[in-house]
Amino acid sequence: MKTLNFEVAADVDPAQLVYTFGGAQAKAELKPGTVVSTSTLDCFAGMITEAGVKPSALIDPRYLNPQTGPFYIEGAEPGDTLAIHFISIEPRFDWGVSTTVEFFGALTGTHDTALLQDPLPENTWFYDLDTEKRLVHFQALGSDLRLPLPLDPMHGTVGVAPALGEVRSALAPGNWGGNMDTPEMRAKTTCYLGVNVPGALFSLGDGHARQGEGETCGVAVECAMDTVFIVELIKGQAPAWPRIETDEYLITTGSTKPLEDAFRIANVEMVNWVSELLEIGTMDAYQLVSQTCLSPVANVVDTVYTMVCKVPKALLGETAAAAFGGAHQKLREKAAEWSAQK
Amino acid sequence: MKTLNFEVAADVDPAQLVYTFGGAQAKAELKPGTVVSTSTLDCFAGMITEAGVKPSALIDPRYLNPQTGPFYIEGAEPGDTLAIHFISIEPRFDWGVSTTVEFFGALTGTHDTALLQDPLPENTWFYDLDTEKRLVHFQALGSDLRLPLPLDPMHGTVGVAPALGEVRSALAPGNWGGNMDTPEMRAKTTCYLGVNVPGALFSLGDGHARQGEGETCGVAVECAMDTVFIVELIKGQAPAWPRIETDEYLITTGSTKPLEDAFRIANVEMVNWVSELLEIGTMDAYQLVSQTCLSPVANVVDTVYTMVCKVPKALLGETAAAAFGGAHQKLREKAAEWSAQK
Amino acid sequence: MKTLNFEVAADVDPAQLVYTFGGAQAKAELKPGTVVSTSTLDCFAGMITEAGVKPSALIDPRYLNPQTGPFYIEGAEPGDTLAIHFISIEPRFDWGVSTTVEFFGALTGTHDTALLQDPLPENTWFYDLDTEKRLVHFQALGSDLRLPLPLDPMHGTVGVAPALGEVRSALAPGNWGGNMDTPEMRAKTTCYLGVNVPGALFSLGDGHARQGEGETCGVAVECAMDTVFIVELIKGQAPAWPRIETDEYLITTGSTKPLEDAFRIANVEMVNWVSELLEIGTMDAYQLVSQTCLSPVANVVDTVYTMVCKVPKALLGETAAAAFGGAHQKLREKAAEWSAQK
Amino acid sequence: MKTLNFEVAADVDPAQLVYTFGGAQAKAELKPGTVVSTSTLDCFAGMITEAGVKPSALIDPRYLNPQTGPFYIEGAEPGDTLAIHFISIEPRFDWGVSTTVEFFGALTGTHDTALLQDPLPENTWFYDLDTEKRLVHFQALGSDLRLPLPLDPMHGTVGVAPALGEVRSALAPGNWGGNMDTPEMRAKTTCYLGVNVPGALFSLGDGHARQGEGETCGVAVECAMDTVFIVELIKGQAPAWPRIETDEYLITTGSTKPLEDAFRIANVEMVNWVSELLEIGTMDAYQLVSQTCLSPVANVVDTVYTMVCKVPKALLGETAAAAFGGAHQKLREKAAEWSAQK
Repeated sequence: MKTLNFEVAADVDPAQLVYTFGGAQAKAELKPGTVVSTSTLDCFAGMITEAGVKPSALIDPRYLNPQTGPFYIEGAEPGDTLAIHFISIEPRFDWGVSTTVEFFGALTGTHDTALLQDPLPENTWFYDLDTEKRLVHFQALGSDLRLPLPLDPMHGTVGVAPALGEVRSALAPGNWGGNMDTPEMRAKTTCYLGVNVPGALFSLGDGHARQGEGETCGVAVECAMDTVFIVELIKGQAPAWPRIETDEYLITTGSTKPLEDAFRIANVEMVNWVSELLEIGTMDAYQLVSQTCLSPVANVVDTVYTMVCKVPKALLGETAAAAFGGAHQKLREKAAEWSAQK
Repeated sequence: MKTLNFEVAADVDPAQLVYTFGGAQAKAELKPGTVVSTSTLDCFAGMITEAGVKPSALIDPRYLNPQTGPFYIEGAEPGDTLAIHFISIEPRFDWGVSTTVEFFGALTGTHDTALLQDPLPENTWFYDLDTEKRLVHFQALGSDLRLPLPLDPMHGTVGVAPALGEVRSALAPGNWGGNMDTPEMRAKTTCYLGVNVPGALFSLGDGHARQGEGETCGVAVECAMDTVFIVELIKGQAPAWPRIETDEYLITTGSTKPLEDAFRIANVEMVNWVSELLEIGTMDAYQLVSQTCLSPVANVVDTVYTMVCKVPKALLGETAAAAFGGAHQKLREKAAEWSAQK
Repeated sequence: MKTLNFEVAADVDPAQLVYTFGGAQAKAELKPGTVVSTSTLDCFAGMITEAGVKPSALIDPRYLNPQTGPFYIEGAEPGDTLAIHFISIEPRFDWGVSTTVEFFGALTGTHDTALLQDPLPENTWFYDLDTEKRLVHFQALGSDLRLPLPLDPMHGTVGVAPALGEVRSALAPGNWGGNMDTPEMRAKTTCYLGVNVPGALFSLGDGHARQGEGETCGVAVECAMDTVFIVELIKGQAPAWPRIETDEYLITTGSTKPLEDAFRIANVEMVNWVSELLEIGTMDAYQLVSQTCLSPVANVVDTVYTMVCKVPKALLGETAAAAFGGAHQKLREKAAEWSAQK
Repeated sequence: MKTLNFEVAADVDPAQLVYTFGGAQAKAELKPGTVVSTSTLDCFAGMITEAGVKPSALIDPRYLNPQTGPFYIEGAEPGDTLAIHFISIEPRFDWGVSTTVEFFGALTGTHDTALLQDPLPENTWFYDLDTEKRLVHFQALGSDLRLPLPLDPMHGTVGVAPALGEVRSALAPGNWGGNMDTPEMRAKTTCYLGVNVPGALFSLGDGHARQGEGETCGVAVECAMDTVFIVELIKGQAPAWPRIETDEYLITTGSTKPLEDAFRIANVEMVNWVSELLEIGTMDAYQLVSQTCLSPVANVVDTVYTMVCKVPKALLGETAAAAFGGAHQKLREKAAEWSAQK
């Protein structure tokens, strides 16, 4: 275990950043087992810093969700599994922003749900972040209302280069991960990603101080992050879609439209995972998942939508801990060891 | 407050039961404020009682989700709001069943998602219910695996007669309530339903000892219930879609296809509710809901799908308690009073 | 063959009309083989008669698509097939109207696709109909542009009482027919409907002087109609979804959301129909339909959406004429006989 | 006008071909106005040549829809419009094939509509093509049935490099064109594509001897093509989505899921186009399109689905011919001139 410090400069030229999964040269080569201490820019590359401004005046829509990475993982081959364990995800500064953007979000017509109505008004909300008290302060724009919300930091984009030679915008989620925008991508979780190209080309970004399930208006409490993660390589076993493991849950994901198909992907993935771990037939696993799963929406606003399927490990018995050869537990221990050494 | 005991006989002729919202004669007239102690048949009217059987051999698909009711609520007029507070929902017997049914469920083609593939196999899982230990025992059909799951009783169908002179099958959810199949419909919750016809014609049924979010295979742990509820009438204020309130959450619902539209309905309802309660503009409410809501799926298997949107009342400040004039708190107190008297 | 004249009075009280499929008493009893000469009100019951008015000021949204009927067909039992052959469908007056309605139509948010944007403006377009020249005159509201369009009269709603004891609004399409809004429902076509209740309870309405495929703004060129049809009864053979036959095409329909599921229904119906008529296996029929079908949208605006699947009979060989025992050809001959006698 | 001959060798190594839009080096540079006479491989690169075989035994799913191109168009800049006029599209050989592929097609579960059912059987249908009689011969696999169908050649994939630095598989349709699979892409049509990168990087492939609307089983009558087209450049005026013009129709396209959103895109595009050409307001154009458009499905099987919206130019008056400065008419004349010279 060896730490690599890798920091994104604050004054970087947006046009020089990476805005895709695939298609970019590796910024660093990592040996499996490395602890990476890094930072990520917010989704606007820090260009929006105050309440009340119209985002379209400040940002170029071609340059959103800048990525930290990609990282080339030594030995990663197509069909392998990358296990990314997040040791910590902490806001880099004491502020975050959210915005409304014309024709973007779940409660407006969009470029895909194309309608003739006028757009909703653009605007920006500024949030004070208090990492001591673990609070995010909502301040209404049209009144004095101010409400403290729990800080709950996470990454919206986590992914690898896609298959079929594709290069995908960091606004898109898919089976390579990408812009899944699920609040489950917190510290102390392990994300499993199937590898599609040599070296995997892993990157991450789009930190959120918190978000609701669905990211309804399309924009979370966006902030730069200081993030520490371990990258591990599991030979073979590539899951068809990204999976997440926490101390409490097995989590599968699916990203597509319509939203029921994202639900179907995540649930088929979970039925197959439970069937394999518990060594029961598909129909028994279908029944068990049907009575035990939690099904929160991740996002209903990106190029396609993301659902997660969560099953409490406690309900599945001891075999649930064996997922990916017990990788999550081992990574939790490595993380504790690293934290102790620091 | 006056208690009305109303029990469904176990040996009733299925063809004589009520399988619709609307279109049936009231079984009783209730004054607002009445506590009703009643029972409901399971969704199969008790016709499926053992593991391993094929449901299609035992049930007539025209007769599913038999309703207890309808109840005519005195004074209820179109535009009013019915507040149904569930004091208790308890399994009537020590067993429940779940099944797979051909071309029904989220992970199979259906009569709507019409495909050419062969159906999944039909089968029945039998669950022992332990109301003392609050457990539901899953027993695999193809192996010895047996797992205890938490008992979490609820009603799948709760609703009133629809608008526009419609009569709707008890398999359909919609803005009248109906087969929403959300695990949020537990004891200690209040369900708000807009009234469409004089007397509202409220009914309930389809008890579940527990279900996963989405009811993936289409069938929960189905069981007969003993249920006690208070029916209250709020003049006017009819919500466009059913809402639920618990001690912790404001909850809105939406039922349609595709699933993202159900999400949109539930979220627009919540944005409007939060805007009204907190006296903030729509865009501020949109922002606040976007950062705070939980978005679990209710069902992805019925004639249309149901989403709920949940916002923690603790995050909204004190004004959140004022929903529907504080009806939930008052009903919680009435329920406590009734329980004490019993 | 016997003609029954049945006319809707122009000054009828809207609240006394029939706005549902199912749930209404039969207006007449018909023997199979009867020629019915009748009239239908326009979808607004004649309440909108000039350009530029706001429809919401003139109409009660509970009372739309008034039906002529229902007709009780002697001998019709569940599982039988009603064959309705349209001899003629002709505008009753020399005018039609179309409107935009708030939150209704394909290019606006709706009550189901619930959004926060302001509604599109309401308005009314008035069309002069010229039945001699077979023209419908479009007149722009905001300019002098006037364009003649071909007259192409049809019925938007054609259906029977639904199954499961349901009563459905005449705004809804489904497997009982109803508000399918397909321009295929012209004169010289035969519509096959599965019977769900004794007597079938057939009705029709919602005449359109013409409409685009999809009925994009939600409202066609609406007009009262004089319509002559033959009602025939085929014992058994009920199709799962309404079918249409013309001299040139076999046509299946499917109505649900999302639109791809409506496509799937219509295509599965066609694969099964072709497989049966040509006595080939399902996979061969799937292949043949895949290379030959036309797939126009019917509507994307009603409570659910309707797709049709059309296969040219000329491509299927002679067996295609045998559909429903050659019913269409026989009805064409009866119609010719009736026209000659007149 | 100058002709460039460019031929794809039949024995090329599949792995050396181009399977993406974007991400490949230009094969040739073309001046606007060039007539290109070229050939395209079939979607399987000629690897499937007989009835009854299982495609999965013969093809690598990473290598489908090989493209001829990309072509770098001199002077093409982002925001410009490429006008591709097809002079002729003719089957290169006297045969075509269609197949069923596991978990691909509209009437089966897929990787996106993820289900637990067994796949439909794989198989291959072989078609004799008769370019003299303009026929395609369907031969059933399970019986002697043989049916002649009209030859109607077209290209499934026509497109340019996408925006946002993306590289997309030739299996995907989108606003860059790509795998739209619409039978409208015939000879004598002009396709307008917005340019996203310098040189546009246009390519084409996936010839179909004919296909039904929707390409229901996922595979048309696939064949190699000899194709002649003119590439023209229009400065600026980039349409948001590909458009097509024929002598009879203005055609817009939209590609996304669910299918109703593809319909919405195509219809919004048409409303805007008609509004601009006829110099009428948006609401008047919405009304006019609603009463005049044809709405055939293109495909319901690719990564996302494609709808087209067609309005007869004859119904719009003379101004309809002015689309893109009359480009279609000019290209028709150039094509006639080229044909005369040959």
